[in-house]
Amino acid sequence: MENNDRRKFIKKVGIGAAAIGAGIASSAVPAIAKKQKTYNWKMVTTWPPHFPMLGEGADNLAKWIDEMSGGRLKITVYGGGELVPPLGVFDAVSQGTVEMGHGAAYYWAGKSPATQFFAAVPFGFNAQSLNAWLYSGGGMKIWEELYAKFNLKPFIAGNTGVQMGGWFNKKIDAMSDLKGLKMRIPGLGGKVLAKAGGNAVLVAGGEIYTNLDRGVIDATEWVGPYHDLKMGFYKAAKYYYYPGWHELGTGLEAMVNLNAWNTLPDDLKAIVEAATYRSNIWMLSEFEAKNNAALRELIDVHKVQLKKFPEAVLKGLKKLSKEVVEEVAAADPMSRKAYDSFLKFQKNVYEWNKITEEPYQQLKYL
Amino acid sequence: MENNDRRKFIKKVGIGAAAIGAGIASSAVPAIAKKQKTYNWKMVTTWPPHFPMLGEGADNLAKWIDEMSGGRLKITVYGGGELVPPLGVFDAVSQGTVEMGHGAAYYWAGKSPATQFFAAVPFGFNAQSLNAWLYSGGGMKIWEELYAKFNLKPFIAGNTGVQMGGWFNKKIDAMSDLKGLKMRIPGLGGKVLAKAGGNAVLVAGGEIYTNLDRGVIDATEWVGPYHDLKMGFYKAAKYYYYPGWHELGTGLEAMVNLNAWNTLPDDLKAIVEAATYRSNIWMLSEFEAKNNAALRELIDVHKVQLKKFPEAVLKGLKKLSKEVVEEVAAADPMSRKAYDSFLKFQKNVYEWNKITEEPYQQLKYL
Repeated sequence: MENNDRRKFIKKVGIGAAAIGAGIASSAVPAIAKKQKTYNWKMVTTWPPHFPMLGEGADNLAKWIDEMSGGRLKITVYGGGELVPPLGVFDAVSQGTVEMGHGAAYYWAGKSPATQFFAAVPFGFNAQSLNAWLYSGGGMKIWEELYAKFNLKPFIAGNTGVQMGGWFNKKIDAMSDLKGLKMRIPGLGGKVLAKAGGNAVLVAGGEIYTNLDRGVIDATEWVGPYHDLKMGFYKAAKYYYYPGWHELGTGLEAMVNLNAWNTLPDDLKAIVEAATYRSNIWMLSEFEAKNNAALRELIDVHKVQLKKFPEAVLKGLKKLSKEVVEEVAAADPMSRKAYDSFLKFQKNVYEWNKITEEPYQQLKYL
Repeated sequence: MENNDRRKFIKKVGIGAAAIGAGIASSAVPAIAKKQKTYNWKMVTTWPPHFPMLGEGADNLAKWIDEMSGGRLKITVYGGGELVPPLGVFDAVSQGTVEMGHGAAYYWAGKSPATQFFAAVPFGFNAQSLNAWLYSGGGMKIWEELYAKFNLKPFIAGNTGVQMGGWFNKKIDAMSDLKGLKMRIPGLGGKVLAKAGGNAVLVAGGEIYTNLDRGVIDATEWVGPYHDLKMGFYKAAKYYYYPGWHELGTGLEAMVNLNAWNTLPDDLKAIVEAATYRSNIWMLSEFEAKNNAALRELIDVHKVQLKKFPEAVLKGLKKLSKEVVEEVAAADPMSRKAYDSFLKFQKNVYEWNKITEEPYQQLKYL
């Protein structure tokens, strides 16, 4: 069955003729032929084509894999909607329509609520702690177990760093200011807002600006200054709030169909894996290096008012977030398992942060 | 000349026969032969063999390169002293005695003071900001320019995260408590201590414990709880101070002899580079995941007293550190160039940290 499936899969996805082989006549042929075989893969993504940093991360992944494999693993990257819709990525890779996908795991909460722990949960990890949990704290094994149920192999392949809290047209001085607030905020952040009495609405990326400008929505979150500046939100909203309590270090993912993965020789497997590490640290570095210049432009040129959520609001949101995430964890055994591991690691890394990264952040004021 | 040099180098380092080729008789031979050629390299390191996390980082680098290259680039790793002394690594790679090295750039301050900016300077970057500066803020280009003068290509290949401030047998309540203090603290940290009236002494790793236990030194820094616990310092000193103001995110390096680098085909170059990214993020994740358990053991089992340097002491050390680093920058044009780039990026990332990582560190208390 398995061999048959594999053969069908190979036929389906178009992995066919070995790249070379003709003209080689020796006992070394089989090994060389295997090593020199060329794989042509497709990667579908949840991003607009070449979307800054996020889509670029997918492009880079393909480029680095191509370079490292000497052209033996060629991956064509498709923007959301070019081959399958952005939110069709998971199914397309799971079913083997394409070999690879790129997105963020919380998009697949409908497949399994547990996926959200591997992208962002409100008041969750920053990038450094998410990486430590995944790579060295057992998180990756749980993610692999979860995705294996969908015939997928997951990789962490990028991070946005701490995001912004969003754009508002009125000040948020107390939790009561969230009551009735119509805000574009997807996922668990939206559920938290709903618990606070607000209206979390879904608006596609291309329509947010118009909705905000016309007052259809009162507020929106997006990513951070680099992306938000391009969206022009400063023309439609006065206040830019921080921190992004709902996305404190969102992990981006690459995923590979497990049958396709199993057809790869070991060297190509190692190459794909290393490329995701490179992409992970590259993307965070880009965000860290480029966000501040955009923030300065928003403040200095466009006169945006930068504001911090008051402590009482963050405290209220944290309490509600805990309830929301507990509900996710109660949904099924995999979610419980992921959350238990997450909580254990969070306790551990919080203690460590207290005497390392936290005092580091204070040194700049001395 | 250049071709001749390369041929001599190839002969010298023993890169000779292509791995395969016999038995292949076709027009495809030259390309395949080049692709299948096996390189046997040596990597010398500044660490004891397989030293936890740091030496393991070198081992992993070699392992991942081997896996990704399908055995075409084999690197044998040598601990410090096995082939060349730990502090002979730079010269050995620079001169082409071996192809690759692994250490930390501040060990080479005697070659060029500018090297220190690429490992750690007092009150410098944490790991995330160092990466952002190097990968996306122009730092790597300066490092490459600096090392090219020594026929070397550098890579950032690991990070310790924020280190500890060290082990003390008396409390440090004021800057005056540093006067006359005999402390094992190398490099720029030592120069800062000397400016504060202390005695910075050099003690090899294997002799620190005995020196501390016998009162030959009053204090020592090392790395962090995971390594310090193994060294048994808790048996010889009462107080464990934080934060490690002198090493807030020490970068580890891999370096390759430029002639050896230039013999590699493009795919192997890309493989070596990706392996350093993987090693970089792997090492930091290990530190972040494992330090706290060791810290708990130090506190709960060995009753170590964890103490934070008072603000007045950190403020005094920061002032002296600024003087010391300015002196480094004044040493030569490359140091000036590195420091100017460092300062510009630090201003940028500090502003960004204020509304992202800094408030993130406060959320745990809500």
